[in-house]
Amino acid sequence: MLIDNSFYMNLAINEAWKYQGLTYPNPAVGACLVGKNGEVLAVEAHHRSGEAHAEVNALKSAYYKLTKNEYIFKLTSSLDIHKYLLSNHNNIFINSKLFTTLEPCSHYGKTPSCASLISELGIKEVYVGSYDTNEVAQKGNAILADNSCVVYTELLQKECDDLLLPFKRSLEDNFVYFKWAQRLNATTDDGNVSSIESRIDVHAKRNVCDLLVIGGNTVRMDRPTLDARLVDGKAPDILIYSREKEFDKSIALFNVKGRKVFIENDFKRLVSYKNIMIEGTSSMYELTRDFVDYYLCYLAPGFGGSNKFDVSEDNFDILNIRQDKQDIIMWMKRI
Amino acid sequence: MLIDNSFYMNLAINEAWKYQGLTYPNPAVGACLVGKNGEVLAVEAHHRSGEAHAEVNALKSAYYKLTKNEYIFKLTSSLDIHKYLLSNHNNIFINSKLFTTLEPCSHYGKTPSCASLISELGIKEVYVGSYDTNEVAQKGNAILADNSCVVYTELLQKECDDLLLPFKRSLEDNFVYFKWAQRLNATTDDGNVSSIESRIDVHAKRNVCDLLVIGGNTVRMDRPTLDARLVDGKAPDILIYSREKEFDKSIALFNVKGRKVFIENDFKRLVSYKNIMIEGTSSMYELTRDFVDYYLCYLAPGFGGSNKFDVSEDNFDILNIRQDKQDIIMWMKRI
Repeated sequence: MLIDNSFYMNLAINEAWKYQGLTYPNPAVGACLVGKNGEVLAVEAHHRSGEAHAEVNALKSAYYKLTKNEYIFKLTSSLDIHKYLLSNHNNIFINSKLFTTLEPCSHYGKTPSCASLISELGIKEVYVGSYDTNEVAQKGNAILADNSCVVYTELLQKECDDLLLPFKRSLEDNFVYFKWAQRLNATTDDGNVSSIESRIDVHAKRNVCDLLVIGGNTVRMDRPTLDARLVDGKAPDILIYSREKEFDKSIALFNVKGRKVFIENDFKRLVSYKNIMIEGTSSMYELTRDFVDYYLCYLAPGFGGSNKFDVSEDNFDILNIRQDKQDIIMWMKRI
Repeated sequence: MLIDNSFYMNLAINEAWKYQGLTYPNPAVGACLVGKNGEVLAVEAHHRSGEAHAEVNALKSAYYKLTKNEYIFKLTSSLDIHKYLLSNHNNIFINSKLFTTLEPCSHYGKTPSCASLISELGIKEVYVGSYDTNEVAQKGNAILADNSCVVYTELLQKECDDLLLPFKRSLEDNFVYFKWAQRLNATTDDGNVSSIESRIDVHAKRNVCDLLVIGGNTVRMDRPTLDARLVDGKAPDILIYSREKEFDKSIALFNVKGRKVFIENDFKRLVSYKNIMIEGTSSMYELTRDFVDYYLCYLAPGFGGSNKFDVSEDNFDILNIRQDKQDIIMWMKRI
């Protein structure tokens, strides 16, 4: 195995995918900080909007690794971490290299600019995967270069662009992903298919979705709640795709506070939302094939059940796979 | 993500799984060498019997990384690498840490002992996953300890033992694994399911199998060759499990030189073999469930076909997953 710059960037990319679908309205971003002798000091990601960016999380972890000073773990706001690092870095980062999947931000938004922080800490080498095309945040590479930092762009750019696509799509119009869970034999019935860890992960994603799309038959058969109770989260609005408008309103999903439920026979509603999860069966897959950006499959390693997820011929590129205790979590795009 | 000793051992474990099924009669082993400042110098594995052990491959890569001396790449025999390192190491490894999934060997077999090499290079910290219980090779940890090396045992031992199980089973009686390829919708028909990379990987595994088991119906329907032509390898002996003993002998598998073909209605033949792959359909899966050690699934990320791999309820622990260009390669065991 080659231990090269791609190795470090891949660590950052894989860490970021763990939070794909959770960072909206922010992008999923990963960062890896490598010390002067090539030691991996930190591999971190951006976790959710309002929290520290990936670079800041990586600098925070690396600060602890280099100083063993636990005080920094008491700081949770990005602003506090920025201030603390600026006052206490003692040039420990000067010969470090930073690998980040996305051009560091240049704007002072919810958090101070990462590009200025990196510069002020004296980091002289930054490897960047994707360019930031967000007009407010871009110019990070330029700020770094203006501050004697050598910026190497386009490292694993394709992989970093795949990671960034959900964010870009949500800026353009919306990001739509189709999620399903199945066993190895493609079954989706007979009790919980997914592990509790996978179901918690789905609830965390629902918590930051603004719209969840589901088929009318599924609602009638499963009588689901479709909220984010496993993470104490916000229940997304629901679009029930159905010709038949009549539903038993005692079905749990209709009785979640603060949620809108639409019952419609088309997908026009999607234009009003930005981060959209479709939880579907095979027939929903076929109906939405033309406008789904990414597919997310929770694959349980087992056999059982009888109803199968099965659609007409299609092929995917796997963007990321990881194992979460029991299940495999796969992000894919159609090719 | 925590960058700790488990991180380095996991790098070694994942590298080793790439060669699971290829190292017979040797174990699949991985090694990671970490420099004095925590830098990853090398992550390597044992590739095949007769070639260098994982530790030697890691030391070879690390030597190049530290010296930039390309001469070492000219050396392919383990003995030559040992000799070269012993004469030329200049104490560059003295403060390195070695992570190895298996206790370093202590015997001078096809290659000189890894334990003595590690000691003579002055490495003072070795982290070991599994104990070597092979009477000829064990005592590696003791040799290291006798030479002022601190040996930390049982790091990720369960994961390392899972990696080692095929080797242990082949020493006890035999290692039997069931291999199949399917799409996401569990289909196994309609052209090649797997990518060319996966098929090459299967042929490489056939090359070191001593027996390949297949069902009579599959032989009649598919008329397969079941050799290792994609890697210019050796064709394994074949056990056709079938009640009906008559086969059209013009089917390719009967006409491969140097191979034995058995047509039998039981699995008694397996006791005469050590490293056994079953390539099967659902019915073969059901027949062999009680004596299969591991399952190997090549999962193609797509839909299509119609004949499905489907068996009665079963659940697995995933031992390792990796993506090989297009497909996912999963090693599992029944739970």
